[in-house]
Amino acid sequence: MDLVNSDSQLLHDSPFLKACRREPTDVTPVWLMRQAGRYMAEYREVRSKVTFLELCKNPDLATEVTVTAAERLGVDAAILFADILLILEPLGLDLEFAKGEGPVIHNPIRESADVDRLRRMDDVAPLDYVLQAVRSIRSALRPTTPLIGFAGAPFTLACYAIEGGGSRHYEKAKSFMYRDPGAWNALMTILTDATIVYLNAQAAAGAQALQLFDSWVGTLGPEDYRRFVQPHMRRLFESLDPTTPSIHFGTDTSTLLELQRDCGGQVIGLDWRIELADGWNRLGPGVAVQGNLDPVTLFGPFAEVERQTRRILGQAAGRPGHIFNLGHGIMPQTPVDNVLRLIELVHETSSAHRVK
Amino acid sequence: MDLVNSDSQLLHDSPFLKACRREPTDVTPVWLMRQAGRYMAEYREVRSKVTFLELCKNPDLATEVTVTAAERLGVDAAILFADILLILEPLGLDLEFAKGEGPVIHNPIRESADVDRLRRMDDVAPLDYVLQAVRSIRSALRPTTPLIGFAGAPFTLACYAIEGGGSRHYEKAKSFMYRDPGAWNALMTILTDATIVYLNAQAAAGAQALQLFDSWVGTLGPEDYRRFVQPHMRRLFESLDPTTPSIHFGTDTSTLLELQRDCGGQVIGLDWRIELADGWNRLGPGVAVQGNLDPVTLFGPFAEVERQTRRILGQAAGRPGHIFNLGHGIMPQTPVDNVLRLIELVHETSSAHRVK
Repeated sequence: MDLVNSDSQLLHDSPFLKACRREPTDVTPVWLMRQAGRYMAEYREVRSKVTFLELCKNPDLATEVTVTAAERLGVDAAILFADILLILEPLGLDLEFAKGEGPVIHNPIRESADVDRLRRMDDVAPLDYVLQAVRSIRSALRPTTPLIGFAGAPFTLACYAIEGGGSRHYEKAKSFMYRDPGAWNALMTILTDATIVYLNAQAAAGAQALQLFDSWVGTLGPEDYRRFVQPHMRRLFESLDPTTPSIHFGTDTSTLLELQRDCGGQVIGLDWRIELADGWNRLGPGVAVQGNLDPVTLFGPFAEVERQTRRILGQAAGRPGHIFNLGHGIMPQTPVDNVLRLIELVHETSSAHRVK
Repeated sequence: MDLVNSDSQLLHDSPFLKACRREPTDVTPVWLMRQAGRYMAEYREVRSKVTFLELCKNPDLATEVTVTAAERLGVDAAILFADILLILEPLGLDLEFAKGEGPVIHNPIRESADVDRLRRMDDVAPLDYVLQAVRSIRSALRPTTPLIGFAGAPFTLACYAIEGGGSRHYEKAKSFMYRDPGAWNALMTILTDATIVYLNAQAAAGAQALQLFDSWVGTLGPEDYRRFVQPHMRRLFESLDPTTPSIHFGTDTSTLLELQRDCGGQVIGLDWRIELADGWNRLGPGVAVQGNLDPVTLFGPFAEVERQTRRILGQAAGRPGHIFNLGHGIMPQTPVDNVLRLIELVHETSSAHRVK
């Protein structure tokens, strides 16, 4: 019991969780979206033996890739290895990660009746393998390293469910939304309900923070966000365990930031299209921010990574509540050496800022 | 001579050109990017007999599809039928429109030496077929309908030239830019020089306005735009015939608008990710704006098109200098009936605003 309490104090005092609460830290905490991913040889080695879905569903392997990445990189938080689309399976959608094609949903939602036939996810039993992974990762991680659980945000999940996979213009999803707002809201409600159950279960299983990935929401203008997304996101954030900080992430959201903030989340994600200082000023004093290096800079040269990283850290200097990250996930061809050097650079540069 | 002068007066007094000059108009002028395109049966009929490149290079067929679209839709401007990538051929790049794959460049630019081997386009002779089309379209159009010439902006052309086709993350182009800024600037200079010659020749051949398509520039943050794009765009706009209004278009540019405006262009394009009023307020009183309906709304229902169109027109009401358009090109599967009704709706609604 004492051990548990002292561990939980160590986590509470970690730079990552302090930054979520906008408390001053000695260094700027940093982690990277998709830090356990294809760019890393250790990951490719594990992945070569199983399919992507098998990896997601095997708590031991998910633990191995999560912990290996966090330790090798020396980042300030680990993120659960999983995929945002796993939650679609228990709802009755037939998900496959086709080789070289990305995710495919074989029975996509195309009309109101398709929404009606979706199952509800009243408890998280069908995703118990994720909770097992959370528990296993938590006990394998150093006691000082927070673990981030996550889920896809309902809009992004709805896009996948309707498009049947990735998309460039989301014409099926948007048309569905415009054509049948009732069915759209029913779908968003089902996805929101499931996500609440799922994320709270992750927090209960041992995640110290929760990230909502609304990766595709930047395809909407502000008015459409307000009409079709905001009520669901607001309910979602209101229903999350209030003791666990949450990160509200999207890309291409420069015109949506205030609306996203008003939904909830202690930390708001910024991508590289907006200057960090501008985005944070617009968001105001009540939230922390996460971001915002363009993942493509990591292809090098490192001098460019350094230039842009120093610029971002300079914009956040003196204002507690910045978690350094990329603006989107690490890309598969990224040189691992640049990633390692980036983590060191963030720690060294931000610690020098603090000393000054 | 009198006829020519009276024609040129008719054009000068057209709602489209008045709006470019921010003069009041009786109706809000409207045209649609890719208005001569696959969504229209008349276009598909012509296109079924020739390849896409053959259509671009045949002045008679280019005239037919341009004029047919403008007349059938009843829009306030025609736009030359051509492709932004045609200019890459005379520079020495081997361009193909592969079936179902979009544009492919078989000898993409991957290193500095590839830039060195590019040809310069000192005169527009290799693109004479475009100028023939401009003359032919101008003489076939009603004397009241302005003709818009266009070119791709250097950043977007450079992305295609380096990626070798379309891209999602532009990792090759951005890496090139970061790795070898000298070669990047050399490439941008060659593209800018060629574009200046090309656009001024289109104006001389009979185009009343010129649009620069910087379709992919929204992948950059403001600082990268300032470093890698702005000097070239500024020189480009400064070198265009000052008597011909120009339209500076991009998508996903919500954080770049002021920087784009500072490069030049009487009209700045806005996509649907930003509220028209917000974008225009940020741009200030010195420019007109074009936009900004999401092309996906045209999939219907029409009530949604109507709702969003009225909203946009309402935001621009009372402020001369709005050209109604989509935020990006019409999509191939768009129902033509919705397009026809949109044009009528813009004319009717905006004319009612004026009378009020």
